[in-house]
Amino acid sequence: MNTANNYKIKHFIWWTRVKVYKILAFSVIFTTLFYFFHLEWLAIPWVPVALLGTATAFISGFRNTQTYNRTWEARQILGSIETDSRTFGIMVKDFLRLENKEEEIALQRQFIYRHFAWLTALRFQLRETKSWENIQTRSYNREFLRYYHVPEWEGNLENEIKPFLSAEELQAALLTKNRATHLIRFQSAHLRKLNEKDMLIAPNYIALENQLKSLLDSQGKCERIKNFPYPRQFSSISLYFTSALCFFLPLGFIGEFSKLIDKYGSHIIWLAVPLSVLIGWVFLVLEQIGESTENPFEGGANDVPITHMSRSIEIELREMLGETNLPASYEPINDILM
Amino acid sequence: MNTANNYKIKHFIWWTRVKVYKILAFSVIFTTLFYFFHLEWLAIPWVPVALLGTATAFISGFRNTQTYNRTWEARQILGSIETDSRTFGIMVKDFLRLENKEEEIALQRQFIYRHFAWLTALRFQLRETKSWENIQTRSYNREFLRYYHVPEWEGNLENEIKPFLSAEELQAALLTKNRATHLIRFQSAHLRKLNEKDMLIAPNYIALENQLKSLLDSQGKCERIKNFPYPRQFSSISLYFTSALCFFLPLGFIGEFSKLIDKYGSHIIWLAVPLSVLIGWVFLVLEQIGESTENPFEGGANDVPITHMSRSIEIELREMLGETNLPASYEPINDILM
Amino acid sequence: MNTANNYKIKHFIWWTRVKVYKILAFSVIFTTLFYFFHLEWLAIPWVPVALLGTATAFISGFRNTQTYNRTWEARQILGSIETDSRTFGIMVKDFLRLENKEEEIALQRQFIYRHFAWLTALRFQLRETKSWENIQTRSYNREFLRYYHVPEWEGNLENEIKPFLSAEELQAALLTKNRATHLIRFQSAHLRKLNEKDMLIAPNYIALENQLKSLLDSQGKCERIKNFPYPRQFSSISLYFTSALCFFLPLGFIGEFSKLIDKYGSHIIWLAVPLSVLIGWVFLVLEQIGESTENPFEGGANDVPITHMSRSIEIELREMLGETNLPASYEPINDILM
Amino acid sequence: MNTANNYKIKHFIWWTRVKVYKILAFSVIFTTLFYFFHLEWLAIPWVPVALLGTATAFISGFRNTQTYNRTWEARQILGSIETDSRTFGIMVKDFLRLENKEEEIALQRQFIYRHFAWLTALRFQLRETKSWENIQTRSYNREFLRYYHVPEWEGNLENEIKPFLSAEELQAALLTKNRATHLIRFQSAHLRKLNEKDMLIAPNYIALENQLKSLLDSQGKCERIKNFPYPRQFSSISLYFTSALCFFLPLGFIGEFSKLIDKYGSHIIWLAVPLSVLIGWVFLVLEQIGESTENPFEGGANDVPITHMSRSIEIELREMLGETNLPASYEPINDILM
Amino acid sequence: MNTANNYKIKHFIWWTRVKVYKILAFSVIFTTLFYFFHLEWLAIPWVPVALLGTATAFISGFRNTQTYNRTWEARQILGSIETDSRTFGIMVKDFLRLENKEEEIALQRQFIYRHFAWLTALRFQLRETKSWENIQTRSYNREFLRYYHVPEWEGNLENEIKPFLSAEELQAALLTKNRATHLIRFQSAHLRKLNEKDMLIAPNYIALENQLKSLLDSQGKCERIKNFPYPRQFSSISLYFTSALCFFLPLGFIGEFSKLIDKYGSHIIWLAVPLSVLIGWVFLVLEQIGESTENPFEGGANDVPITHMSRSIEIELREMLGETNLPASYEPINDILM
Repeated sequence: MNTANNYKIKHFIWWTRVKVYKILAFSVIFTTLFYFFHLEWLAIPWVPVALLGTATAFISGFRNTQTYNRTWEARQILGSIETDSRTFGIMVKDFLRLENKEEEIALQRQFIYRHFAWLTALRFQLRETKSWENIQTRSYNREFLRYYHVPEWEGNLENEIKPFLSAEELQAALLTKNRATHLIRFQSAHLRKLNEKDMLIAPNYIALENQLKSLLDSQGKCERIKNFPYPRQFSSISLYFTSALCFFLPLGFIGEFSKLIDKYGSHIIWLAVPLSVLIGWVFLVLEQIGESTENPFEGGANDVPITHMSRSIEIELREMLGETNLPASYEPINDILM
Repeated sequence: MNTANNYKIKHFIWWTRVKVYKILAFSVIFTTLFYFFHLEWLAIPWVPVALLGTATAFISGFRNTQTYNRTWEARQILGSIETDSRTFGIMVKDFLRLENKEEEIALQRQFIYRHFAWLTALRFQLRETKSWENIQTRSYNREFLRYYHVPEWEGNLENEIKPFLSAEELQAALLTKNRATHLIRFQSAHLRKLNEKDMLIAPNYIALENQLKSLLDSQGKCERIKNFPYPRQFSSISLYFTSALCFFLPLGFIGEFSKLIDKYGSHIIWLAVPLSVLIGWVFLVLEQIGESTENPFEGGANDVPITHMSRSIEIELREMLGETNLPASYEPINDILM
Repeated sequence: MNTANNYKIKHFIWWTRVKVYKILAFSVIFTTLFYFFHLEWLAIPWVPVALLGTATAFISGFRNTQTYNRTWEARQILGSIETDSRTFGIMVKDFLRLENKEEEIALQRQFIYRHFAWLTALRFQLRETKSWENIQTRSYNREFLRYYHVPEWEGNLENEIKPFLSAEELQAALLTKNRATHLIRFQSAHLRKLNEKDMLIAPNYIALENQLKSLLDSQGKCERIKNFPYPRQFSSISLYFTSALCFFLPLGFIGEFSKLIDKYGSHIIWLAVPLSVLIGWVFLVLEQIGESTENPFEGGANDVPITHMSRSIEIELREMLGETNLPASYEPINDILM
Repeated sequence: MNTANNYKIKHFIWWTRVKVYKILAFSVIFTTLFYFFHLEWLAIPWVPVALLGTATAFISGFRNTQTYNRTWEARQILGSIETDSRTFGIMVKDFLRLENKEEEIALQRQFIYRHFAWLTALRFQLRETKSWENIQTRSYNREFLRYYHVPEWEGNLENEIKPFLSAEELQAALLTKNRATHLIRFQSAHLRKLNEKDMLIAPNYIALENQLKSLLDSQGKCERIKNFPYPRQFSSISLYFTSALCFFLPLGFIGEFSKLIDKYGSHIIWLAVPLSVLIGWVFLVLEQIGESTENPFEGGANDVPITHMSRSIEIELREMLGETNLPASYEPINDILM
Repeated sequence: MNTANNYKIKHFIWWTRVKVYKILAFSVIFTTLFYFFHLEWLAIPWVPVALLGTATAFISGFRNTQTYNRTWEARQILGSIETDSRTFGIMVKDFLRLENKEEEIALQRQFIYRHFAWLTALRFQLRETKSWENIQTRSYNREFLRYYHVPEWEGNLENEIKPFLSAEELQAALLTKNRATHLIRFQSAHLRKLNEKDMLIAPNYIALENQLKSLLDSQGKCERIKNFPYPRQFSSISLYFTSALCFFLPLGFIGEFSKLIDKYGSHIIWLAVPLSVLIGWVFLVLEQIGESTENPFEGGANDVPITHMSRSIEIELREMLGETNLPASYEPINDILM
């Protein structure tokens, strides 16, 4: 997530420069063919370009709407995890009661630390790279990666969850396919034991189980966004239409400026180049922005800041446990918050 | 579901080639009539084409929005089934308690296997073919079927659910009209027995019943999307308008290029052919993409991957039962995940 | 609901033919006035038509979006009723327990039959005709009625619910204004009696009451869509704008073709007629489709199939009761499923 | 709410006539200046008008979408109140149990009448006039008020709720700022007393309290729509853009017709007047419709019919109490249902 | 929130005047270069401007839709807080029961005052300034700040919550990072104590805990909107596209008017200036309105009125406690309600 007021225009142009070069090349070639080689039929009428522009605007607008929705839904789910974590913390504090206050706090810490393990397993899983994600395959995204770090790519899951689990649970968790699910299962199994020993009465037990269900629910929703891409058929046509439009733009402009040759001389035709680049850039940027917003957990600059949010939750729950040696909050690097 | 970065352009063109041939034929015929037979009134003005193009873009955009919503809702429902299955698994593990640990695990397995039977019955039912689905009737879809398999069309329901049910329940289930509903009913009847024998206390009983209700709810939502097509009146006008537009496009282009004949000679009129094909193709692709996204459970390449998801759930729940001989995960074939 | 692949184009044209005649008449009159009577100022510029076309496309698109939403929401509510009916059936089977198994099944049947009475009362009420519904007032809709039947218009509520209720309850229900509400009240009053006699323990009692609440909720939502039309102010402007556009279309085309008279002769002006009819038809169809999708319970061909769904529910619940003499499922007639 | 098939076109034109006069005046003035005073630079090109038209169509379309959503949400909330009232009635009937049947019915009546008081207080509060509502300030709305009555403006709250409350509660309610909230509080306080005296067991008590919470929730949602207008910044730009467009329309038409002067003579310029009026009217109507749909509780002809719905609820609940002397249902006056 | 009928046009123009100056400067410069320096190639064709205008209208429309949604969602959340506060008040009154009525009211007051502390902490936190908020950095917003006050910027949190908390709780709350969360935790801890001492029975205890969970949920949703800006990539392209359009508008108009030079003389070219300013202003206003609606808690004139709403809740809950010395309601200043 970018926390600045706006992206700087120079960063934007730099980020999209490869596509600018391409459309520049096309328009120079076409104009050269027209101007020096007199391929006059390149001066096509404007109407197909206008119609193609309208269709492309529809498809690009549609894509941006849907990818925005994906990002916003992802943020909503993370918000639910934050709220459910707070509620879970408060419930653990008030529903898990032992005579001995020290044992009580130790028991509560066990649950809350296991929750940290779940949060960590979840964010590592969400930052894995899927076959349809572009963050490490497109050159313009790779370049941008030097401005920020993706903590989940640099850290190691086992090391990070070790402090939160017993050796036995750590082992069991690492053996499973979906660690996060099984960490919730451990919480539930522990609650069962307390309930069986009459250390947790039925209504409180059910309330805590419901809270675990909420967390599983949010986990499932995150996985849905992670594992189900913006449908590739829509993403593909958005790419094809934009490319087709950028191909025809210079031809259309040559057509338009060719009408002005009588009045201003044939040099005027070269204005087709800057206009093609500018208008083409507008549509290419729309396309590239759409692509970079599709996957809110891919490790990109526009990601939902899951590392930061997990850390915030950790701080709040540690405060609830009465800890004072709190970890620092994650801060944005170059205005990028992960 | 396609798991690649984008559909390949050549696959797209191949998939839509029949329509390309048709529009090519139209535009060649019209241009021939104009060029060789001097039917000059074919050179109609552009304005009706522009207006028709706007209306078609609206209708196509609307269709794509709604079919996208259908697919995304289908994926949400499957996500709920995934989450509710996990929760059901955890509840079965922690709420169904017997003194004898072996009997306990056997009882739990009975419930979880019956759940697998439900999942299987549901996905077979969702992959049946409805009268409005095109996957087996349109030639371009039939052709594409050789790139992937639809497991539900090749397998046999009875064989697949046999391992999960007692002989008696299998028989009873196969006799009913809607197997999935009645499998949930069996779960509930079994819970009733446990509750009557005081082996399941009231709050846990109610919680498990609520979980069954959630599963029934998701099943009903899947059936809603399966049994209620995108309204045929909207689908029909999308088809008619696109066809009308493609019919008029060559006429409009002939009209536009006829204005340039004085300047560039009458050969220029033949440019109407490639432009008609390209712009027509854009709208035809929009239409065909819309059609192929309408039904997320029809067995198409853009389906929600219900076979894969059922298998994932099976693996996770078997892990909960402590099984180690786990089935393999379904993988994409030619980037298509079912 | 239409269950075919698409509406046939000939049915569409037949269904909209009156409007086609009107726009044909207008365009012939205007062209005659221009061609024979030389009212040359009828050749207005195209720009007002284009602007009007854009505004009309917005309003028509908006209307189609909202009427689609109404239909889809109606289908969602019916889906909830289906799911809640299944859950109600399962709960009745497992929560209403008597020592004597025969008495138990008789008691359960009483509740489930009363539920059928509720379903029947609801669908009769939803298929009544409201002052803003067009199915019986517009000639094109009346004509279409011969292709299918509306069972609620042919049957009689009293006869249909008689088999499901005691004589006393039948009488009481028929006296009330809103039968469906009071049938739910009878269910609740019966539950109260069982609870008072200690034949139904508190948690199960509350769960069943909640289920009745869900059914009431869905009933209220159906009534909302039935009793609150698509706001008439929006429906009216959609009609006015489309009419205005169709009035101006021939004038605009006369204007455009009048520019070509010098080149192709004055006969060319008659092309305004077919183009006006075609483009006008596009907008008129949009308008008529919108109108015919507004009210999903009016007895039209695009209705949500409530008769079919009620029957499906009845079959499933009778299977739960162990009945084997099941009624037949409602099937589509001429591809129309009610 | 209008219950007719469509608004009559003559009512529409009458309702918008002041704006029609204004745009008529503008276009006559501009055309006069051009025709008689030869201010030829008034003949501006069409392109700015087209661009402004597009922007205005976007903004007007957006406004109509959002105001439609406000109205539809208001109707949904009222639907919830209707359903929750029915459920409340059924719960009161079945959960409030006394040995003495006469005392029981008296107790139930007390709760249900207090509910009528709440409904009445709520609808009086919703029909108060806010500073951003136009129903009594715009002349065209004031005029229209003679076609229907707003019962809440003619009645008096105290008189209307007096029959439903004890003298003491009436006094206490009238002293508070938000009567509806405190009437719910009285319901809850009464339930507490019954619970304390062991006349209402815990699960039923909690269920009734939850029902009150639902009613409070719907009340809060109504107040949200009532107290938070469609943001004035959006409403303002919609007004400004439409006005600007209507100012430029005649100039644009003069520009277009001035091109035809050589062909048809300078009289042709006067066609700018009727076209400006018609196209301007389309956008003005869109604007005025949007304005009149913004506030669904302002006492306008397009209001959600809260008086009618309250009365329907009253009738149904009185039937539940076994009353036979039922009030009449509110009916539409001149097709307007309040 | 603005409570007037509309923003005054003069305020709007004043608020956007800097941007008007800029576009005025551009258009004067370009026209001067064309008119006096004969840079005739500045007269570019209109088509790129039209295409850019369409793309900008899409992006601006999209932004306004999403920022409207943010504001509306914020208002919904605040509405939930209002409703949940009322319900909490009623529950505190009816669920917290002591023999001694004076002690009871004192206990109830403790909970309700702590709730006021939570409301206060929440609104102070929501009115802090984020790095992407513009209210204090843009000159046009700073200027507007003199028309109204932001109470949270003038007051001091500690002073305002002191009357509502014990000295000990005040201290503890101020030490934490997120005061609101921990104030809810104090409520829960207090409930636990009552429950442990058997002063609060299980169902009522659970109901109150659920109410706290709802409040935490709404708090989390507010924080989501506060802490997650409208994605900066979308905000950035909206800014860039609008700027590009305003740059090209004068060039496009010069192009259009240059066609009229032969007819009306070269002075006509200066009409490009007022038209550029007007049409540019339309798009600039759209952009600035979008920006000023993005963050509903930034302290701007279009904010959700959280100070006013908190005060209303306080008044209603104090009335429930039987207090008569009520604080005054916050009123709008210059039509701005905070």
